[in-house]
Amino acid sequence: MKHFTSVHDLDNLDEALKLALELKKDPYKYQDLGKNKTLLLVFFNSSLRTRLSTQKAGLNLGMNVIVFDINEGGWKLETELGVIMDGDKPEHIREAVPVIGKYCDIIGVRSFAKFENKADDYEEKIIQQFIDYSGVPVVSMEAATRHPLQSFADHLTIEEHKTKARPKVVMTWAPHPRALPQAVPNSFVEWMRATDYELVVTHPEGYELAPEFMGDLKPEYDQMKAFEGADFIYAKNWAAYNDYGKILSQDRDWTVSDRQMAVTNNAKFMHCLPVRRNMIVSDSVIDSPNSIVVEEAGNRLFSAQTVLKLLLDQMK
Amino acid sequence: MKHFTSVHDLDNLDEALKLALELKKDPYKYQDLGKNKTLLLVFFNSSLRTRLSTQKAGLNLGMNVIVFDINEGGWKLETELGVIMDGDKPEHIREAVPVIGKYCDIIGVRSFAKFENKADDYEEKIIQQFIDYSGVPVVSMEAATRHPLQSFADHLTIEEHKTKARPKVVMTWAPHPRALPQAVPNSFVEWMRATDYELVVTHPEGYELAPEFMGDLKPEYDQMKAFEGADFIYAKNWAAYNDYGKILSQDRDWTVSDRQMAVTNNAKFMHCLPVRRNMIVSDSVIDSPNSIVVEEAGNRLFSAQTVLKLLLDQMK
Amino acid sequence: MKHFTSVHDLDNLDEALKLALELKKDPYKYQDLGKNKTLLLVFFNSSLRTRLSTQKAGLNLGMNVIVFDINEGGWKLETELGVIMDGDKPEHIREAVPVIGKYCDIIGVRSFAKFENKADDYEEKIIQQFIDYSGVPVVSMEAATRHPLQSFADHLTIEEHKTKARPKVVMTWAPHPRALPQAVPNSFVEWMRATDYELVVTHPEGYELAPEFMGDLKPEYDQMKAFEGADFIYAKNWAAYNDYGKILSQDRDWTVSDRQMAVTNNAKFMHCLPVRRNMIVSDSVIDSPNSIVVEEAGNRLFSAQTVLKLLLDQMK
Repeated sequence: MKHFTSVHDLDNLDEALKLALELKKDPYKYQDLGKNKTLLLVFFNSSLRTRLSTQKAGLNLGMNVIVFDINEGGWKLETELGVIMDGDKPEHIREAVPVIGKYCDIIGVRSFAKFENKADDYEEKIIQQFIDYSGVPVVSMEAATRHPLQSFADHLTIEEHKTKARPKVVMTWAPHPRALPQAVPNSFVEWMRATDYELVVTHPEGYELAPEFMGDLKPEYDQMKAFEGADFIYAKNWAAYNDYGKILSQDRDWTVSDRQMAVTNNAKFMHCLPVRRNMIVSDSVIDSPNSIVVEEAGNRLFSAQTVLKLLLDQMK
Repeated sequence: MKHFTSVHDLDNLDEALKLALELKKDPYKYQDLGKNKTLLLVFFNSSLRTRLSTQKAGLNLGMNVIVFDINEGGWKLETELGVIMDGDKPEHIREAVPVIGKYCDIIGVRSFAKFENKADDYEEKIIQQFIDYSGVPVVSMEAATRHPLQSFADHLTIEEHKTKARPKVVMTWAPHPRALPQAVPNSFVEWMRATDYELVVTHPEGYELAPEFMGDLKPEYDQMKAFEGADFIYAKNWAAYNDYGKILSQDRDWTVSDRQMAVTNNAKFMHCLPVRRNMIVSDSVIDSPNSIVVEEAGNRLFSAQTVLKLLLDQMK
Repeated sequence: MKHFTSVHDLDNLDEALKLALELKKDPYKYQDLGKNKTLLLVFFNSSLRTRLSTQKAGLNLGMNVIVFDINEGGWKLETELGVIMDGDKPEHIREAVPVIGKYCDIIGVRSFAKFENKADDYEEKIIQQFIDYSGVPVVSMEAATRHPLQSFADHLTIEEHKTKARPKVVMTWAPHPRALPQAVPNSFVEWMRATDYELVVTHPEGYELAPEFMGDLKPEYDQMKAFEGADFIYAKNWAAYNDYGKILSQDRDWTVSDRQMAVTNNAKFMHCLPVRRNMIVSDSVIDSPNSIVVEEAGNRLFSAQTVLKLLLDQMK
């Protein structure tokens, strides 16, 4: 593994999962591995879980960790070539990224979709420049189209809670007042398709995800039908991909509540957080014993630590 | 001690004081105690002394320290139950707090009184949620009604400078251009009442502190009379408690100056800082050899380190 | 060396340079030296290279590192004496600085020229207060009139790339849309004059630097003549010193491009970064193999680590 931006970067998913479970049991087992290695976390966007869990993951491995917030107002980067830089952007990414790479051994980058231009987002213009020019391994802490550390933690959580070899996992769209990126749903679908779980994706018409993530999978537009017999419900809002960045529905019939949970196989409820209560999910569902959202967030520590451990192994 | 939010959380004040003095002599004596323990400092409000001293206290004990600034603009937390979260608050404190608790072993929280609602402030709505839901020990780095790490440092400072067994300690209100919380004076009074010092509180009428902090103690409205024979003068502004959050006086006769200091027993001058010169205290007093404000601030390191040491002891 | 604010603070420049080269080969050689020492980095202004490289320099030496951002809006410091502090500045630098000094062993300070008052800037009012009142060694991370960690890294870079004992080093002014401080050019000239390199400074008339930095050196107003036979081109914009803080020219004929580089001795191109492409330098020059700007920025780590190592040596 040279960089970590999707499930496909892992050489062996089963072994990565085994390592994550091992680290959860004994988080300090490899605490000498990161000695004299510096992890630099670069945030173009705000963060709570990712910020804290990835810092702790590096510290658990004995790394030095430096956090760098790029205030987009204060430190705008020019990304186009050939420009006369006489405007409000004092630095070109061509200088900034290789310089950042001089001060660390692994870079984590968070850079959300901007919804300004679909091609820019789906070509992953920002994180790709870190991969191309930093000279060190790059870990996605949520990029424009994927949030793989989240999906890895989701996988770990399902593995810990499943009661049958091949659980039925249902990802459902749910309403939200703002336009959210597709990174989490894209990444979840991609990651689940790399397991042998049964995966069903349900959303209103118009909310189809990009074909590169869905592959052969067809969405089920009937949410109640999708939920039948489900072992895990994974709720998430996203804005439209085809009508890029648009909010097409705020239909609260899609809010996950007791009505839909009643037709599942006593399903566990999951969400990546932060979650809007009574928009995405009813209080009754998220406060029920079947809600595993806090434990799921806790697993973010171990997905990050696993990825860092695998990258450090290759530096020995 | 499960949490630290007031002097009453200490099992034994004398021993805590002794430990603080021991740590001041040898700050690195217990530097292995915090190995593989993470201290997370959550700031809802800005900070200089608390931020730096508490970080250093954790590092002195060998802890990993992570600082997390909650920009109230960027990461607003919903605190009410049953709300449809379709507004500007993307996350509920019911998810945020237990998740934060997953990434650390001890949480420090700073959250000032908001002066919007007296009951909300005096019920300590924010820090109480951390105590109820984080699952780990919580240390107050100044909450709505108390600032116990400050009071502990004040106690340590008086102990180091007292020249008689039972010094006379006078806390005086002084004018300030803005409405300030009662956390520091509440906490100082509560802490001093747990010692055997002689305590006098003086302020203009209308500035009475909450009965739960004053207990049997009656304020002295005549500042000059209060200062007579004092060994320590502790100055502080606060806004009214009864007429909640109001500024009732900006009378600069209450500014601590040579006139009042002249009637003391060559008293030491104390203040928690930051201090408004020539509002709270004259240049002549704060720049005099009797001013011990910088040493007092330095003791913040040892009050924090003592509290962390006591909490870590219980995790062994 | 008690503090580090200019080349003149180094006891022996040759030995400092040798140490920097040694640290570059083996960055972790002195990793026990900083044990239980805390480096506090105080930023009044934003930073990328300085922030990251100085943090890493401290960590490489085994120090604890704490970063403190002073948001000038949120934490304004009063610097005048005798003022009645009833305005928007809650704290006086006379309290803030000695308190900060209580929580660390070495302080790094970044505080740019404000261009409000030439005397205030050239008297180094801010960093001087840290030197006078903090009680610990102070390292300039760019002050109003000098940026010595940058100049030291520049020196190291030239030393690594020079192909003759006494290379010709040309510092050239170049256009920029905003008024920039003279700290980098002042410091570069001062540092180069402490070496035995041949130094030429070229800029349009009106951009003369302060006499205390130029000494006997006369500027060459003809840029092409200055570049003839140069081994190193060091480009930088600055605003006028005499007509203090003014932009007198934005003449893009001064932009370093192939035309000027053609008359050099195959010169290396240097800049402290961030750099405005096609204002300061053409894409063709900064993207050429002769551009060593990224390596130069990388050397910031070793200039900082050298200075910290020398200060730590004196604490043993």
